[in-house]
Amino acid sequence: MDVGFIGMGRMGRGMAARLAQEGHTVRAWNRSPEAAQGVPGVTAVGSAAEAFRGDAVITMLADDAALESVLVQGGLLDGAGRPGVHLGMSTISVALAERLTAIHERAGIPYVSAPVFGRPDAAEAGKLNIVVAGPEASIASATPLLDAMGAKTWRYGEKPKRANAVKLAGNFMLISAIEAMGEACAFTEGHGVPGAELLDLMSNTIFAAPVYKNYGAAIATSRYEPPGFGLRLGAKDIRLALQAGEAAGVPMPFASVLRDGLIEAMARGDGEKDLAALAEVSRRRREGR
Amino acid sequence: MDVGFIGMGRMGRGMAARLAQEGHTVRAWNRSPEAAQGVPGVTAVGSAAEAFRGDAVITMLADDAALESVLVQGGLLDGAGRPGVHLGMSTISVALAERLTAIHERAGIPYVSAPVFGRPDAAEAGKLNIVVAGPEASIASATPLLDAMGAKTWRYGEKPKRANAVKLAGNFMLISAIEAMGEACAFTEGHGVPGAELLDLMSNTIFAAPVYKNYGAAIATSRYEPPGFGLRLGAKDIRLALQAGEAAGVPMPFASVLRDGLIEAMARGDGEKDLAALAEVSRRRREGR
Amino acid sequence: MDVGFIGMGRMGRGMAARLAQEGHTVRAWNRSPEAAQGVPGVTAVGSAAEAFRGDAVITMLADDAALESVLVQGGLLDGAGRPGVHLGMSTISVALAERLTAIHERAGIPYVSAPVFGRPDAAEAGKLNIVVAGPEASIASATPLLDAMGAKTWRYGEKPKRANAVKLAGNFMLISAIEAMGEACAFTEGHGVPGAELLDLMSNTIFAAPVYKNYGAAIATSRYEPPGFGLRLGAKDIRLALQAGEAAGVPMPFASVLRDGLIEAMARGDGEKDLAALAEVSRRRREGR
Amino acid sequence: MDVGFIGMGRMGRGMAARLAQEGHTVRAWNRSPEAAQGVPGVTAVGSAAEAFRGDAVITMLADDAALESVLVQGGLLDGAGRPGVHLGMSTISVALAERLTAIHERAGIPYVSAPVFGRPDAAEAGKLNIVVAGPEASIASATPLLDAMGAKTWRYGEKPKRANAVKLAGNFMLISAIEAMGEACAFTEGHGVPGAELLDLMSNTIFAAPVYKNYGAAIATSRYEPPGFGLRLGAKDIRLALQAGEAAGVPMPFASVLRDGLIEAMARGDGEKDLAALAEVSRRRREGR
Repeated sequence: MDVGFIGMGRMGRGMAARLAQEGHTVRAWNRSPEAAQGVPGVTAVGSAAEAFRGDAVITMLADDAALESVLVQGGLLDGAGRPGVHLGMSTISVALAERLTAIHERAGIPYVSAPVFGRPDAAEAGKLNIVVAGPEASIASATPLLDAMGAKTWRYGEKPKRANAVKLAGNFMLISAIEAMGEACAFTEGHGVPGAELLDLMSNTIFAAPVYKNYGAAIATSRYEPPGFGLRLGAKDIRLALQAGEAAGVPMPFASVLRDGLIEAMARGDGEKDLAALAEVSRRRREGR
Repeated sequence: MDVGFIGMGRMGRGMAARLAQEGHTVRAWNRSPEAAQGVPGVTAVGSAAEAFRGDAVITMLADDAALESVLVQGGLLDGAGRPGVHLGMSTISVALAERLTAIHERAGIPYVSAPVFGRPDAAEAGKLNIVVAGPEASIASATPLLDAMGAKTWRYGEKPKRANAVKLAGNFMLISAIEAMGEACAFTEGHGVPGAELLDLMSNTIFAAPVYKNYGAAIATSRYEPPGFGLRLGAKDIRLALQAGEAAGVPMPFASVLRDGLIEAMARGDGEKDLAALAEVSRRRREGR
Repeated sequence: MDVGFIGMGRMGRGMAARLAQEGHTVRAWNRSPEAAQGVPGVTAVGSAAEAFRGDAVITMLADDAALESVLVQGGLLDGAGRPGVHLGMSTISVALAERLTAIHERAGIPYVSAPVFGRPDAAEAGKLNIVVAGPEASIASATPLLDAMGAKTWRYGEKPKRANAVKLAGNFMLISAIEAMGEACAFTEGHGVPGAELLDLMSNTIFAAPVYKNYGAAIATSRYEPPGFGLRLGAKDIRLALQAGEAAGVPMPFASVLRDGLIEAMARGDGEKDLAALAEVSRRRREGR
Repeated sequence: MDVGFIGMGRMGRGMAARLAQEGHTVRAWNRSPEAAQGVPGVTAVGSAAEAFRGDAVITMLADDAALESVLVQGGLLDGAGRPGVHLGMSTISVALAERLTAIHERAGIPYVSAPVFGRPDAAEAGKLNIVVAGPEASIASATPLLDAMGAKTWRYGEKPKRANAVKLAGNFMLISAIEAMGEACAFTEGHGVPGAELLDLMSNTIFAAPVYKNYGAAIATSRYEPPGFGLRLGAKDIRLALQAGEAAGVPMPFASVLRDGLIEAMARGDGEKDLAALAEVSRRRREGR
């Protein structure tokens, strides 16, 4: 398929490279142009408009503001480009997903929300878990792309915002797991057991899952650089979850604790470290530092 | 080995049966005597004192009060019985573990803390994960018993209380996972996605671990009976974790949220249901019921 | 002075009437025009633009959206009206106060933030506490108005947003007091002491202040209608406090608890009742209903 | 009246002196004997038993452990001394109040719970607020003592534990007010307004009550020494409130936040400072120190 790709951060580059490797034609654009260059098999184009056409366009941007700036303020939807489908793969707010659904409808361009779980290495290997919601026919038309990028595609019906809600719920669960590990480590450390020894047990028995193994390894050794998933991005996701929770009338006491802990972590200068650095908040509190 | 077994609840019966099956001689006692009877290969005895002797004695009681009542108020430590080692396998407080350590030392009876992870079916199958701390020689002498009951024994040094801290930390992580699932389900349900569909994704990808699969299945279907791990017992464990946390100077905001949620669940009549019923607190709040 | 008044809700009407009574000329406008009519001494005008001129203009609207809609989308700042000073008295976000400061500067119209503490009866009696920040000369020019409306004016320097931060902090403290009373009442009621008896003691001794007396009386009798300060508005203020807290890197665990409690109260249908109805959340939780 | 007084800490000395000044005969005992000496008009006695007789005995000890140690382990209730009434004025747990009620009943000595609000200067001046519950006739017999020590006596019926529940609820409200001030100050300070300026407004308007004035003054200037009400004692009271809350099935999210904040304050070395030092937890978090 002929695909435009907007947003060539670490995730985007991996996904675009994978698409090219699987035989798709990829035109890529990024605000800072260097990022769009040097990706094997991918052609860098000079404007977002050149990317916003073809069989499909994929957007993979950092947040609501970046996506709105390119798409809405950039006027892409009013331009000449009529992509067959727009796959919005960024982690954005539920509210923006709803607005995008409405304005795409007015513009006559099919919109599908398709945020992903997985780190850059999974993106390069085509092993993402893709959470999809939107018009069935549009999803069907994008199947070759979804199959190229994902280990599996998870379908959540026709309303795009649902995929975004699922993505935020997943990130909330992930950050909750980190906080739980952080408190648990501070707790056993207060009783003489290194967190590493606790997490070795847990992540090999009842919590034997990628989240606990990967983030647990970082917490066990207090190594948070380089970041896989940056703490500041995680704080953004919790903010989005709290907003969407409030909009749907859902109290979320764990999410509130996470919010406060992440703010504290950023005040301590850990915003650019890996999300797992949230665990240090609990350790510092215990140690009185 | 010749083993006394005190406390024949669902877990205790499974463990005692397993020991007998693996060739050990088991004398069992329970406060309500029926529970000690009818376990294949296990001999019921008429008093705790008759169980409290031999190569080793194992205690597996519901809580601090039950253990103190039998052991301390019951005067076992001052009696004629001199078991080779006392394996305390109940989930008890860190503070009681410290007191037990001191009074066993005075009595000259080796004490080892050995709480377990696993449900009754794992106990019967000898597949528990056993968390052990105590004098090395005593643990060595109990190895045949630990091997019979456990898939694996995890060692945490010579101070018994450390094993209890690890056990409480693990249960705290478990209940945190349930709360996170509960809030996440309420959240996606508020946006039109059944919790079951969220948990299907999560427990098969980044959270593919027994805790998320087992408790997730209960939450997905809102089925909390019969209980595997009773909610009221979970509330007790969080209370113990908060107490031991305070003693070690560890703030635990997640544990505090769990405490309040579990109290609310019990006020709604869910104390005897499975711990996973904690998830209903989040759902009820969203639905305004 | 010749004053325009935009926003004739319950507070606005009281304030406008007071200004007229004190000898000022008041031109009032409200989106739904009936509300601007029948206020003694106040002239209703047909458009916001007719109000937005003279010696000063006062805005007193429900929230950010209402103010932005009238002022920014309504194009008032680009119009012919050049009021001597704009007193923004609404409870709005810190972020909006900052944007307003910038756009007024560009438009060459002095902007002063002047939110208030006090209920409609205090507004009518000119007994408000007014929290003011902005250019000193502009505040000086508005002194006759501030003196007419307020028991006292509290000054917070030249940056308008500071007054808004103080207002949000005050409302946060107020709602925290309500939650504390709610939990305390549920607590003593759980031990057989009616909340009314607890609050009688507290609000006459160490907590002998208007907040505890007024809201305490509502909580003591569980009477939340008619609302003085609506719960939904309070939920908005906590949302604004959390946002401004995050922007300034301030974790606010009490505010997070309030957020969750207020969402739960609204899910129970208490959004249009008085803010004091937050106390019922604690009572319902205890009673398991 | 002829009164025994057990527990001559700062509060106890003030109360005993006041009783003597009002014409009562006071025999005082304290574990470390120096504290019982040099109080005008008060006779130091050499044992708790010598104090535990006469028309009435008053106990004013630091916590549950101190009271149980003197009263229960000390065997006072089984001794020859038969005081006309025992006024328990310490801040103790609801559970201990219930146990004391039962064991006094068995011993045939009337027991009245009578905890107080007020600092040592109020004790000396006879200006305490006394919270009383117990058998009506016993309270009546103690009226001269209560009148001597208190500005007012507040009655809560015949069950002693109710007075203790009210006292804990009051302290919970007090510490909640401190936390609210702490978060509010950190919040406005994050926006450029010193906490002192916020608290000046609040404690002179809608929060014009002793709690906000006194503790607010300490928070405004960050002066927490010498302590009036020690932080560690406050942490104890929150622990007691949480325990009694759990016993009565009352979730208390604010109390949970306080618990975690107080533990953090103690880890920072503020346990012996004034309770108001809790506010520094919020400030430190914002400032990333």
